[in-house]
Amino acid sequence: MATGNIFQAIPQDIPQELFEVILEKPGVTIERIISKGHTTPKGAWYDQNNDEWVLLLQGEARVVFQGESEPYTLAVGDYLYIPAHVKHRVDWTSRTTETVWLAIHIVVDSLEDSQLK
Amino acid sequence: MATGNIFQAIPQDIPQELFEVILEKPGVTIERIISKGHTTPKGAWYDQNNDEWVLLLQGEARVVFQGESEPYTLAVGDYLYIPAHVKHRVDWTSRTTETVWLAIHIVVDSLEDSQLK
Repeated sequence: MATGNIFQAIPQDIPQELFEVILEKPGVTIERIISKGHTTPKGAWYDQNNDEWVLLLQGEARVVFQGESEPYTLAVGDYLYIPAHVKHRVDWTSRTTETVWLAIHIVVDSLEDSQLK
Repeated sequence: MATGNIFQAIPQDIPQELFEVILEKPGVTIERIISKGHTTPKGAWYDQNNDEWVLLLQGEARVVFQGESEPYTLAVGDYLYIPAHVKHRVDWTSRTTETVWLAIHIVVDSLEDSQLK
Protein backbone atom coordinates (compact mmCIF):
# COMPACT_ATOMS: atom_id res chain seq x y z
CA MET A 1 0.00 0.00 0.00
CA ALA A 2 1.77 3.16 -1.18
CA THR A 3 1.56 5.68 1.62
CA GLY A 4 3.50 8.81 2.42
CA ASN A 5 3.31 12.47 3.32
CA ILE A 6 3.36 15.10 0.60
CA PHE A 7 5.29 17.56 2.79
CA GLN A 8 8.03 15.15 3.77
CA ALA A 9 11.41 14.44 2.21
CA ILE A 10 11.78 17.94 0.80
CA PRO A 11 15.51 18.39 0.14
CA GLN A 12 17.41 21.28 1.74
CA ASP A 13 18.80 22.47 -1.57
CA ILE A 14 16.68 22.59 -4.68
CA PRO A 15 19.01 23.70 -7.44
CA GLN A 16 16.52 22.53 -10.05
CA GLU A 17 12.77 22.25 -9.89
CA LEU A 18 11.95 18.80 -8.48
CA PHE A 19 9.51 16.47 -10.21
CA GLU A 20 8.57 13.22 -8.46
CA VAL A 21 6.01 10.68 -9.58
CA ILE A 22 3.84 9.50 -6.68
CA LEU A 23 1.52 7.21 -8.62
CA GLU A 24 1.52 6.17 -12.26
CA LYS A 25 -1.48 4.41 -13.75
CA PRO A 26 -2.69 3.93 -17.31
CA GLY A 27 -4.10 7.33 -18.22
CA VAL A 28 -3.13 9.15 -15.04
CA THR A 29 0.05 10.28 -13.33
CA ILE A 30 0.11 11.90 -9.89
CA GLU A 31 3.20 13.99 -9.34
CA ARG A 32 4.71 16.21 -6.67
CA ILE A 33 6.55 19.28 -7.91
CA ILE A 34 8.74 21.45 -5.68
CA SER A 35 9.84 24.89 -6.82
CA LYS A 36 11.91 27.50 -5.01
CA GLY A 37 12.26 30.59 -7.11
CA HIS A 38 12.11 28.49 -10.28
CA THR A 39 10.17 29.74 -13.26
CA THR A 40 9.65 28.73 -16.86
CA PRO A 41 12.41 30.37 -18.94
CA LYS A 42 11.37 33.74 -20.39
CA GLY A 43 9.57 33.32 -23.67
CA ALA A 44 9.14 29.54 -23.20
CA TRP A 45 5.70 27.96 -22.82
CA TYR A 46 4.50 24.58 -21.65
CA ASP A 47 2.46 22.97 -24.43
CA GLN A 48 1.34 19.60 -23.05
CA ASN A 49 -0.35 16.63 -24.67
CA ASN A 50 -2.14 15.81 -21.42
CA ASP A 51 -4.69 17.65 -19.36
CA GLU A 52 -3.24 18.82 -16.07
CA TRP A 53 -4.86 19.73 -12.80
CA VAL A 54 -2.61 21.40 -10.25
CA LEU A 55 -3.19 22.14 -6.58
CA LEU A 56 -0.83 24.41 -4.69
CA LEU A 57 -0.17 22.87 -1.27
CA GLN A 58 2.53 25.14 0.13
CA GLY A 59 4.23 28.38 -0.91
CA GLU A 60 3.10 30.76 -3.62
CA ALA A 61 3.29 30.92 -7.39
CA ARG A 62 2.13 32.81 -10.43
CA VAL A 63 1.00 31.13 -13.64
CA VAL A 64 0.39 32.90 -16.95
CA PHE A 65 -1.66 31.59 -19.86
CA GLN A 66 -0.67 32.61 -23.37
CA GLY A 67 -2.91 35.38 -24.65
CA GLU A 68 -4.11 36.41 -21.20
CA SER A 69 -2.85 39.63 -19.71
CA GLU A 70 -3.47 38.80 -16.05
CA PRO A 71 -1.49 36.02 -14.36
CA TYR A 72 -3.07 33.65 -11.84
CA THR A 73 -1.56 34.14 -8.41
CA LEU A 74 -1.81 30.85 -6.54
CA ALA A 75 -1.80 30.59 -2.76
CA VAL A 76 -2.24 27.52 -0.55
CA GLY A 77 -5.26 25.50 -1.59
CA ASP A 78 -5.67 27.14 -4.99
CA TYR A 79 -6.16 24.82 -7.93
CA LEU A 80 -6.07 25.29 -11.66
CA TYR A 81 -7.15 23.13 -14.55
CA ILE A 82 -4.91 23.36 -17.60
CA PRO A 83 -6.39 21.58 -20.62
CA ALA A 84 -3.99 19.91 -23.07
CA HIS A 85 -2.25 22.36 -25.40
CA VAL A 86 -3.29 25.43 -23.47
CA LYS A 87 0.05 27.19 -23.41
CA HIS A 88 1.19 28.42 -20.03
CA ARG A 89 4.25 29.28 -18.06
CA VAL A 90 5.19 29.57 -14.41
CA ASP A 91 5.98 33.25 -14.13
CA TRP A 92 7.12 33.32 -10.52
CA THR A 93 7.53 31.11 -7.43
CA SER A 94 8.57 32.11 -3.93
CA ARG A 95 12.34 32.19 -3.33
CA THR A 96 11.94 32.01 0.43
CA THR A 97 9.61 29.01 0.83
CA GLU A 98 9.45 25.74 -1.01
CA THR A 99 6.38 25.77 -3.21
CA VAL A 100 4.78 22.32 -3.23
CA TRP A 101 2.43 21.45 -6.09
CA LEU A 102 0.32 18.40 -6.62
CA ALA A 103 -0.10 17.78 -10.34
CA ILE A 104 -2.55 15.30 -11.85
CA HIS A 105 -1.70 14.54 -15.48
CA ILE A 106 -4.58 13.04 -17.41
CA VAL A 107 -4.03 11.37 -20.77
CA VAL A 108 -6.48 12.80 -23.31
CA ASP A 109 -6.20 10.30 -26.17
CA SER A 110 -7.42 6.70 -26.27
CA LEU A 111 -9.68 7.21 -23.29
CA GLU A 112 -12.97 8.04 -24.95
CA ASP A 113 -14.32 4.54 -24.36
CA SER A 114 -13.84 4.73 -20.66
CA GLN A 115 -16.83 7.06 -20.48
CA LEU A 116 -19.03 4.21 -21.59
CA LYS A 117 -18.11 2.06 -18.64
CA MET B 1 -10.53 27.68 -16.88
CA ALA B 2 -11.78 25.89 -13.78
CA THR B 3 -10.09 27.47 -10.79
CA GLY B 4 -10.87 27.51 -7.11
CA ASN B 5 -9.58 26.95 -3.61
CA ILE B 6 -9.91 23.57 -1.99
CA PHE B 7 -10.39 25.09 1.48
CA GLN B 8 -13.14 27.48 0.49
CA ALA B 9 -16.91 27.10 0.48
CA ILE B 10 -16.92 24.65 3.38
CA PRO B 11 -20.44 24.75 4.82
CA GLN B 12 -21.00 25.58 8.49
CA ASP B 13 -23.06 22.49 9.08
CA ILE B 14 -22.11 19.15 7.65
CA PRO B 15 -24.90 16.78 8.65
CA GLN B 16 -23.73 14.27 6.03
CA GLU B 17 -20.31 13.66 4.61
CA LEU B 18 -19.90 16.01 1.64
CA PHE B 19 -18.75 14.72 -1.76
CA GLU B 20 -18.07 17.27 -4.51
CA VAL B 21 -16.68 16.58 -7.95
CA ILE B 22 -14.01 19.13 -8.92
CA LEU B 23 -13.05 17.68 -12.28
CA GLU B 24 -14.47 14.76 -14.24
CA LYS B 25 -12.61 13.36 -17.23
CA PRO B 26 -12.78 10.04 -19.03
CA GLY B 27 -11.00 7.67 -16.69
CA VAL B 28 -10.43 10.12 -13.84
CA THR B 29 -12.53 11.98 -11.31
CA ILE B 30 -11.09 14.51 -8.87
CA GLU B 31 -13.25 14.96 -5.81
CA ARG B 32 -13.27 16.91 -2.57
CA ILE B 33 -14.64 15.12 0.46
CA ILE B 34 -15.42 16.83 3.75
CA SER B 35 -16.00 14.80 6.90
CA LYS B 36 -16.71 15.97 10.44
CA GLY B 37 -17.00 13.04 12.75
CA HIS B 38 -18.38 10.91 9.92
CA THR B 39 -17.30 7.32 9.58
CA THR B 40 -18.22 4.31 7.50
CA PRO B 41 -21.04 2.47 9.30
CA LYS B 42 -19.80 -0.30 11.62
CA GLY B 43 -19.31 -3.52 9.71
CA ALA B 44 -19.64 -1.83 6.30
CA TRP B 45 -16.74 -1.72 3.86
CA TYR B 46 -16.02 0.29 0.74
CA ASP B 47 -15.42 -2.10 -2.15
CA GLN B 48 -14.73 0.11 -5.17
CA ASN B 49 -14.41 -0.67 -8.86
CA ASN B 50 -11.89 2.15 -9.28
CA ASP B 51 -8.45 2.75 -7.88
CA GLU B 52 -8.44 5.63 -5.43
CA TRP B 53 -5.68 7.90 -4.23
CA VAL B 54 -6.51 10.12 -1.27
CA LEU B 55 -4.62 13.02 0.23
CA LEU B 56 -5.65 14.44 3.58
CA LEU B 57 -5.49 18.25 3.37
CA GLN B 58 -6.99 19.31 6.68
CA GLY B 59 -8.12 17.59 9.87
CA GLU B 60 -7.42 14.02 10.89
CA ALA B 61 -8.79 10.60 10.05
CA ARG B 62 -8.29 6.89 10.52
CA VAL B 63 -8.68 4.34 7.74
CA VAL B 64 -8.80 0.57 8.21
CA PHE B 65 -8.16 -2.05 5.55
CA GLN B 66 -9.96 -5.36 5.83
CA GLY B 67 -7.71 -8.03 7.24
CA GLU B 68 -5.24 -5.56 8.73
CA SER B 69 -5.18 -5.10 12.47
CA GLU B 70 -3.61 -1.63 12.53
CA PRO B 71 -5.51 1.36 11.15
CA TYR B 72 -3.79 4.12 9.19
CA THR B 73 -3.95 7.39 11.09
CA LEU B 74 -3.86 10.21 8.56
CA ALA B 75 -2.70 13.73 9.38
CA VAL B 76 -2.29 16.73 7.09
CA GLY B 77 -0.31 15.83 3.98
CA ASP B 78 -0.67 12.08 4.38
CA TYR B 79 -1.72 10.16 1.31
CA LEU B 80 -2.91 6.63 0.72
CA TYR B 81 -3.35 4.54 -2.39
CA ILE B 82 -6.36 2.23 -2.31
CA PRO B 83 -6.40 -0.21 -5.24
CA ALA B 84 -9.77 -1.25 -6.64
CA HIS B 85 -11.58 -3.84 -4.51
CA VAL B 86 -9.27 -3.45 -1.55
CA LYS B 87 -11.90 -3.25 1.14
CA HIS B 88 -11.56 -0.40 3.57
CA ARG B 89 -13.53 1.81 5.90
CA VAL B 90 -13.15 5.19 7.49
CA ASP B 91 -12.92 4.30 11.14
CA TRP B 92 -12.77 7.79 12.58
CA THR B 93 -12.64 11.47 11.58
CA SER B 94 -12.23 14.50 13.80
CA ARG B 95 -15.45 15.88 15.28
CA THR B 96 -13.91 19.26 16.03
CA THR B 97 -12.35 20.16 12.68
CA GLU B 98 -13.55 19.64 9.16
CA THR B 99 -11.45 16.94 7.57
CA VAL B 100 -10.78 17.82 3.92
CA TRP B 101 -9.77 15.01 1.58
CA LEU B 102 -8.71 15.15 -2.01
CA ALA B 103 -9.68 11.92 -3.75
CA ILE B 104 -8.51 10.89 -7.21
CA HIS B 105 -10.65 8.08 -8.63
CA ILE B 106 -8.99 6.21 -11.46
CA VAL B 107 -10.98 3.90 -13.72
CA VAL B 108 -9.26 0.54 -13.93
CA ASP B 109 -11.06 -1.11 -16.85
CA SER B 110 -10.86 -0.16 -20.53
CA LEU B 111 -7.69 1.78 -20.00
CA GLU B 112 -5.05 -0.79 -20.83
CA ASP B 113 -4.47 0.66 -24.27
CA SER B 114 -3.63 4.08 -22.96
CA GLN B 115 -0.24 2.75 -21.90
CA LEU B 116 0.65 2.24 -25.52
CA LYS B 117 0.28 5.90 -26.37
